[in-house]
Amino acid sequence: MTRHPTMRWDSSEPTLHLVDQRILPRVIRDVRCTSAAQTARAITTMVVRGAPAIGCAAAFGIALEAARTKGFGDAARKSALTKAFQVLAKSRPTAVNLFWALDRMRSAVESHRGDGAALAVKLERLACAIHREDIRINRAMGRHGAALIPAGARVLTHCNAGALATADYGTALGVIRAARSKITNVWVDETRPFLQGARLTAWELMQDNIPVTLITDNMAAHFMQRGEVDAIVVGTDRVAANGDVANKIGTYGLAVLARAHRIPFYVACPISTIDVATSHGRHIPIEERGRDEVTGHAGKSWAPRDVRVANPAFDVTPARLVTALITERGVMRAPNAAKIKALMRDAR
Amino acid sequence: MTRHPTMRWDSSEPTLHLVDQRILPRVIRDVRCTSAAQTARAITTMVVRGAPAIGCAAAFGIALEAARTKGFGDAARKSALTKAFQVLAKSRPTAVNLFWALDRMRSAVESHRGDGAALAVKLERLACAIHREDIRINRAMGRHGAALIPAGARVLTHCNAGALATADYGTALGVIRAARSKITNVWVDETRPFLQGARLTAWELMQDNIPVTLITDNMAAHFMQRGEVDAIVVGTDRVAANGDVANKIGTYGLAVLARAHRIPFYVACPISTIDVATSHGRHIPIEERGRDEVTGHAGKSWAPRDVRVANPAFDVTPARLVTALITERGVMRAPNAAKIKALMRDAR
Repeated sequence: MTRHPTMRWDSSEPTLHLVDQRILPRVIRDVRCTSAAQTARAITTMVVRGAPAIGCAAAFGIALEAARTKGFGDAARKSALTKAFQVLAKSRPTAVNLFWALDRMRSAVESHRGDGAALAVKLERLACAIHREDIRINRAMGRHGAALIPAGARVLTHCNAGALATADYGTALGVIRAARSKITNVWVDETRPFLQGARLTAWELMQDNIPVTLITDNMAAHFMQRGEVDAIVVGTDRVAANGDVANKIGTYGLAVLARAHRIPFYVACPISTIDVATSHGRHIPIEERGRDEVTGHAGKSWAPRDVRVANPAFDVTPARLVTALITERGVMRAPNAAKIKALMRDAR
Repeated sequence: MTRHPTMRWDSSEPTLHLVDQRILPRVIRDVRCTSAAQTARAITTMVVRGAPAIGCAAAFGIALEAARTKGFGDAARKSALTKAFQVLAKSRPTAVNLFWALDRMRSAVESHRGDGAALAVKLERLACAIHREDIRINRAMGRHGAALIPAGARVLTHCNAGALATADYGTALGVIRAARSKITNVWVDETRPFLQGARLTAWELMQDNIPVTLITDNMAAHFMQRGEVDAIVVGTDRVAANGDVANKIGTYGLAVLARAHRIPFYVACPISTIDVATSHGRHIPIEERGRDEVTGHAGKSWAPRDVRVANPAFDVTPARLVTALITERGVMRAPNAAKIKALMRDAR
């Protein structure tokens, strides 16, 4: 079965088609973006989510803006592009891939010496390259990570670090896809409040005929206690220079539980997700999202109307709880600042 | 504000009114039971839930059956009552209070020497006594438990061990109510899949003007990591003779997390919830409930239609992770088999 793509670039009249992840899997419908502002809005409202996918979408958002303004005068185009970078940079705070992708696009803008039409072509090509590159990286992570999965493994994952969170194939789910012949069950945490696990991960894996069992987040510990989890694999939105891992809320608790049950805890992490400018996990900004996500789901509300709510979208897992980072360049066991520094030097 | 009662006995034409906990807090509506079968169905479908409340409801269920059959011949009444005990005993498997209450009612039936009308009066009185006694016990647990809560405490609770889970006042929420002057925030886990925290606990505490913050289950670890949880207080459905605690799914994970963060983990536990006939937590039957609870909520479904689901309604926390059991007879620190044996001997 061919998967409906997470995002599709239409070059003819430049449009970014994003599958609306708020309503998957019951409704498969694309949202069309033709400007940076529309793309930023799609990121903020989680039409598209997942750190690598956000990075790709932001790159296309800049490409859209360059296309939209290619006939403008230099000053007007420059002003529009400056605003485009600003609005996209503000769309979500935690995933560093967003800033990484915008930095690459900005370098291309700054080094450009031709007219608006040439810039539009250049930025379109770069965005498409970032998108293709993400798929290559995910497949490389999958190969490296699959070697860590034992035969007959029951693997637990949280949130969606799959094809839907990336250009395609996935980070954590890329590892699971690459190891599929060895996997007998994937425990899928439903991942409240946005239910990425129940809606996206379960759906993705079922389309690939990989065996899944959906559970609520609070059941994970029970199945660890019963010896029914052999490994945990998650993605990440930002890894600090010391190896601390920001990822979807609930990840930290799983890492503590994994340690208590001696279960390896793996983080699939493209190098673009490592943020050497952030020394320690405590400096990673944690997005606080709206109350409606917690009081209900998709327009249906079940909690008392005026209840106080906390809704941190991410948490930070200290490096000491991470068995290994899985990158496109290989597996880094027991990540720390020195190993990350060496990796980033080699990757340059 | 007077709380709507969890259950209300109408003696005039014997009826048990149960507030329908499936639709609280948005709709406050009673389900009326006039037979044991109706009461059993209300327990199975979670119109009424919470170990002590289930015990009280089952006692009333037997009283209803005695009233309904008081004019029957001896053989027909005996047969109806036997069936009533059977159907109620099968209504849910984990909470031991159900069996405890049925045993008390059965003793009263077996020792009865009068006619059907006298038996109906006797069983009505006993059920009402069990109901009143539960409230007294909860208030005593509250007093003992409140002494454990430090001034300014931020307390986390899971599921609903409140007035709605009991005759009134609550077990874990009884402790919170009794300690309310010292509590600055109650973190309320929403408690998927049935959402007892989001729907019932948040509502109950807000009615009493106790400050609550609703979170999804997977956020608890994050707030422990940030030092914003000073104590965890939960209820229980059954405590084994060795001190192992069965409670709502998710409790075990919280206990592991509490230990990792050096947060005291308290279990409010009426003596009727201690099951000396079960030597070890691993022998406590764990109810597996239907898939629809996990794939959605209240008739709305969001997961793929044919996804495989696990839905254990409870988990077992080993005694070594329990800082103390709070009973109506006082606080038992570091529970174990010897201490429980001594308590049960004294309580006899």
